[in-house]
Amino acid sequence: MEDEVKALLTLVNKLLPTTENPVHSSDLKLLKDHAERIAALAKAQPAALNARPKIKEMSGEVVDSNPYSRLMALKRMGIVNNYEDIRKFSVAIVGIGGVGSVAAEMLTRCGIGRLLLYDYDTVELANMNRLFFKPDQAGMTKTDAAVQTLAEINPDVILESYTQNITTVDGFKKFTDSLTRDIKGNSTGGKSGVDLVLSCVDNYEARMVVNQACNELRQTWMESGVSEDAVSGHIQLLIPGETACFACAPPLVVASGVDEKTLKREGVCAASLPTTMGIVAGLLVQNTLKYLLQFGLVSRYLGYSALKDFFPTMEMRPNPQCSNTACLECQHEYEANKPERDAAAKLKAEADAEEASRAAEVPLHTENEWNIRSVF
Amino acid sequence: MEDEVKALLTLVNKLLPTTENPVHSSDLKLLKDHAERIAALAKAQPAALNARPKIKEMSGEVVDSNPYSRLMALKRMGIVNNYEDIRKFSVAIVGIGGVGSVAAEMLTRCGIGRLLLYDYDTVELANMNRLFFKPDQAGMTKTDAAVQTLAEINPDVILESYTQNITTVDGFKKFTDSLTRDIKGNSTGGKSGVDLVLSCVDNYEARMVVNQACNELRQTWMESGVSEDAVSGHIQLLIPGETACFACAPPLVVASGVDEKTLKREGVCAASLPTTMGIVAGLLVQNTLKYLLQFGLVSRYLGYSALKDFFPTMEMRPNPQCSNTACLECQHEYEANKPERDAAAKLKAEADAEEASRAAEVPLHTENEWNIRSVF
Repeated sequence: MEDEVKALLTLVNKLLPTTENPVHSSDLKLLKDHAERIAALAKAQPAALNARPKIKEMSGEVVDSNPYSRLMALKRMGIVNNYEDIRKFSVAIVGIGGVGSVAAEMLTRCGIGRLLLYDYDTVELANMNRLFFKPDQAGMTKTDAAVQTLAEINPDVILESYTQNITTVDGFKKFTDSLTRDIKGNSTGGKSGVDLVLSCVDNYEARMVVNQACNELRQTWMESGVSEDAVSGHIQLLIPGETACFACAPPLVVASGVDEKTLKREGVCAASLPTTMGIVAGLLVQNTLKYLLQFGLVSRYLGYSALKDFFPTMEMRPNPQCSNTACLECQHEYEANKPERDAAAKLKAEADAEEASRAAEVPLHTENEWNIRSVF
Repeated sequence: MEDEVKALLTLVNKLLPTTENPVHSSDLKLLKDHAERIAALAKAQPAALNARPKIKEMSGEVVDSNPYSRLMALKRMGIVNNYEDIRKFSVAIVGIGGVGSVAAEMLTRCGIGRLLLYDYDTVELANMNRLFFKPDQAGMTKTDAAVQTLAEINPDVILESYTQNITTVDGFKKFTDSLTRDIKGNSTGGKSGVDLVLSCVDNYEARMVVNQACNELRQTWMESGVSEDAVSGHIQLLIPGETACFACAPPLVVASGVDEKTLKREGVCAASLPTTMGIVAGLLVQNTLKYLLQFGLVSRYLGYSALKDFFPTMEMRPNPQCSNTACLECQHEYEANKPERDAAAKLKAEADAEEASRAAEVPLHTENEWNIRSVF
């Protein structure tokens, strides 16, 4: 719009001195006033990308104008050692719906380095019962609408948007190609160029495609899902070769040979809630942060059952009879690397023991106002 | 801006036929094109309050243009019997920060009847690491910014905004006054006019004020909180007389007589994460929906510990030695109402048993393709 207003002003300025008729001249002066006011109004509109300037380096300075102060405070609180490293990481999010869009917003506000966004759907008013999209974005592609909102929230994040269906042959190729480029856009020679893939899709077919790509690229990923009745969901960590892949234990509907497409009836839609989807996105991104910045325990599987606030956990080992060839290759590689892993684990255990013995020399609490004693 | 553009177009139209010089005429035609394109651009700008028209009645119709289709589907899924009743409810949210703002957005997208919003703080860039507020809202009061965003998301919700500190004598009076008006703004004669109060504040003093008001009004409320290190949080249900009130079991820091204000040091700020706050807001609003629409089990206390994805639960009975006089009154009333409650519980148990025996007459699964049998 700014360009448009500028062109109009140039034209009015060109007209002004050549007009002889005084009536015209005063009218044109009025016209110029109008155009100038439009220019001012256009400037006052929140302009995406201009909402705040880019910030070159994350700082922990405690001032109201620092969008990273409360995140860098995680270092002072002893939770994360290296928060600023978040800028080095690339995360791919497949499916920008009720879970994926909120996950993208959380990572954007956390200051992630790069986000790769995949979806081919458009925003509808029927999506407004979940967080993130706005009614005036109805009709836009979900990827375009997401980039519009995310760039305004945090211009420091590199946003790559892929408006495509990954389940077609062509789409799958573009998907894996995009995953094999690094944060600067350079080819990584067939290896994965991202640090984590988050699957936030709503169907089995797309999950199997993400599974295939991640098995081929030896790429760790997290799967998420919400039930059709909107009151339960889950997240799951998948490390090729180490944990079950998505094909290792297919859902019952697939095991019994039902075509997923026949399950969706015309005019019937799944229920959804902003609460369940927000919680699942939160758990997904929280585990993403723990995984990337190496703090806390990354959940292998975490369920959420809203009716009783129940949170089941479990672990799934890979299936040696998995139907996915790439998964079997990963399993063999993982088995072959066992001596290496054991040696690394032993070194870490020794370092931890040394650190613990050093810590034991310092009393845990120097003050003891409640006179608490240990009795053995 | 629309008025401005209209004035410009009128003027250009007036100029056009009276200009003799052909050069001027073609230039003015160009000018008109520009102005028309500006008009189109101005129309495309998201206009708060005009993003979609109000919807008179919630429908379950499955069309892309229905923002309530996925919520009304909860009825078809057998989760909620009466979803459209959500429009009858008023919820007060005290504190529109990292948890309160997201809770307000979730309830707005769910189509709640009325939201009462309380905060006296302004939006800063330092708040951008949590969901909801946008960088261009920096400097606005949190209540104004929230109303701007929420009205655009769902114009059907009645939004009442109270930009005030509830912990002053005057603020407390205005707070209780606002709670004793119904959804139409009429006085409820000293009784509570809202269905639930959500406390999303970040300090003990404000929580005690909400506790006092809710005890006095016999108003059920939910408390929420997130730890200073950003990796744990909780929600708690408080029913005056039936559960512990917030003064029944004061935190250790208060029990040991430390002034809360002395704990906050200059230049030191608490850490926060959009994940933890989003999850706590999600759990809070999920329990709000269960409480208002009567489905599932409303949690009395639910904790969230992010480092291990641990979700502790507990129950707290009221303290007969509580320092809060209003709480003691509520406890006596609750005790006095025991015969009435017992009678109601007995009636409900009988009705449930009758329903269960009716349901037992119908087989649970008519098909049994896996030949599953019960063996006794």
